Amino acid sequence: MSLETVDGFIIDLDGTVYRGAQAIPGAKESIALLRSQGKRMVFLSNRGNISRAMCHQKLLSMGIDVPAEEILLTSTVTARYLQQHHPGSQAWVLGPDGLRDELVLAGIGLAEKPENAEWLVITLHEELTYAELNQAFRAVRNGARIIATNDDKSFPGDDGECIDVGGMIAAIVATAGQEVEVVIGKPSALMAEAALQVLGLPPQQCLVIGDSLGSDIQLGRRAGIRTALVLSGSATRLDAETAAEGPDMVWESLAELQHLLKGKEGIK
Amino acid sequence: MSLETVDGFIIDLDGTVYRGAQAIPGAKESIALLRSQGKRMVFLSNRGNISRAMCHQKLLSMGIDVPAEEILLTSTVTARYLQQHHPGSQAWVLGPDGLRDELVLAGIGLAEKPENAEWLVITLHEELTYAELNQAFRAVRNGARIIATNDDKSFPGDDGECIDVGGMIAAIVATAGQEVEVVIGKPSALMAEAALQVLGLPPQQCLVIGDSLGSDIQLGRRAGIRTALVLSGSATRLDAETAAEGPDMVWESLAELQHLLKGKEGIK
Repeated sequence: MSLETVDGFIIDLDGTVYRGAQAIPGAKESIALLRSQGKRMVFLSNRGNISRAMCHQKLLSMGIDVPAEEILLTSTVTARYLQQHHPGSQAWVLGPDGLRDELVLAGIGLAEKPENAEWLVITLHEELTYAELNQAFRAVRNGARIIATNDDKSFPGDDGECIDVGGMIAAIVATAGQEVEVVIGKPSALMAEAALQVLGLPPQQCLVIGDSLGSDIQLGRRAGIRTALVLSGSATRLDAETAAEGPDMVWESLAELQHLLKGKEGIK
Repeated sequence: MSLETVDGFIIDLDGTVYRGAQAIPGAKESIALLRSQGKRMVFLSNRGNISRAMCHQKLLSMGIDVPAEEILLTSTVTARYLQQHHPGSQAWVLGPDGLRDELVLAGIGLAEKPENAEWLVITLHEELTYAELNQAFRAVRNGARIIATNDDKSFPGDDGECIDVGGMIAAIVATAGQEVEVVIGKPSALMAEAALQVLGLPPQQCLVIGDSLGSDIQLGRRAGIRTALVLSGSATRLDAETAAEGPDMVWESLAELQHLLKGKEGIK
């Protein structure tokens, strides 16, 4: 497929633009080229434990300047979901301040006591304490409904594989005896809709670029958006070739975008 | 039923002998009377986060002197189970030092790294950290089998209902994708067998006294031991009367034992 017909790029962050604290080689230049050509962009992450301001700073530290309104984290989309569907709700957070910041920005009230919360919002919490688990448990026992930024089971950390939101969710669901009502993260339609809304474009004019078959490529396929898998993160070429629902294209990394865009220009 | 035919008393601790840090009125005197009459006793708790030495000290602080060998906690029985069925195993603990002490006393080795463990032992951990959850997760991902001291979902704490071992188990099982292989706690046959072994008596000469229909009374019924429910803990008289599998007797508290034993003497 040609990139000429693509006006909007939905770009995954972790494993596509950066890995840990390091930018993936060529990612910065590809993003700059897209911007110079007037392409629209939105950057997606299933991370719900940071705010857009924190993510903006992280990208800036790698020399990549992306305005906060082009960043869509699950914290952002969770906050918007509550604001749109349950305005005026009081929320209790099992997670760090990054998520609280996004909720407050979207106008969601934070309950003073777990017992007062209408929603328990769960995300990855790397500073988790037993007291916080109990507060979340008591929110649900007192009637709070459960929404999770995502339900990934684990992620690669600096010192090995780490428990992700799935672990925090399970601890609450198993003890409070209530299921999760909404999961926001990729590959959900909610994340695709939010991305298309930022771009202001229909699905057929867009392309999803990401490193995960299960979240990025699935998100694109379900929403009718073309997909490119990059091999700079969790998936291999073999994964892509043997996947029941594979991507439209496979690239070594986001750097390949430069050749494709320049190639297109060269043909002109 | 008469207590004349009872030679061994299997007595639950939490809700029967004490509640929090307070002895239940009359419990101390009933235990003293049993001892003066030469009755054999064993004290049971589903707690797996403390050692017998810690429990002995707790009882002593209430004026109740029970030798450590008459105390059976799930930490004790878990340690014995591993020692008997999987001698020489290396264990990793998700829990506090009380459980580690019991494992070491039973001759179980503690793995130096989670990756080396053959068993992950899970119990209530009130000082839980995210780093410890990840270590437990990595033990299982590297092949450790899971054993839990108990799988209670919650318990009444000083400041409200608290998440019990069930929450810790769920966080690991949901993310590591492996089920728990053994649960030691009441009403399991393992706890009943361990209690009868301490008493050195057959089931028909014993009586289980406890405050929980689901754990204490069930333990007795399954093992063919008579049962007395005390109303000083979690169950009410209505619970006892409407239970599909109720107790043989219902007492207000352990204090009632004194009247029954004295009554028996009076008839003689």
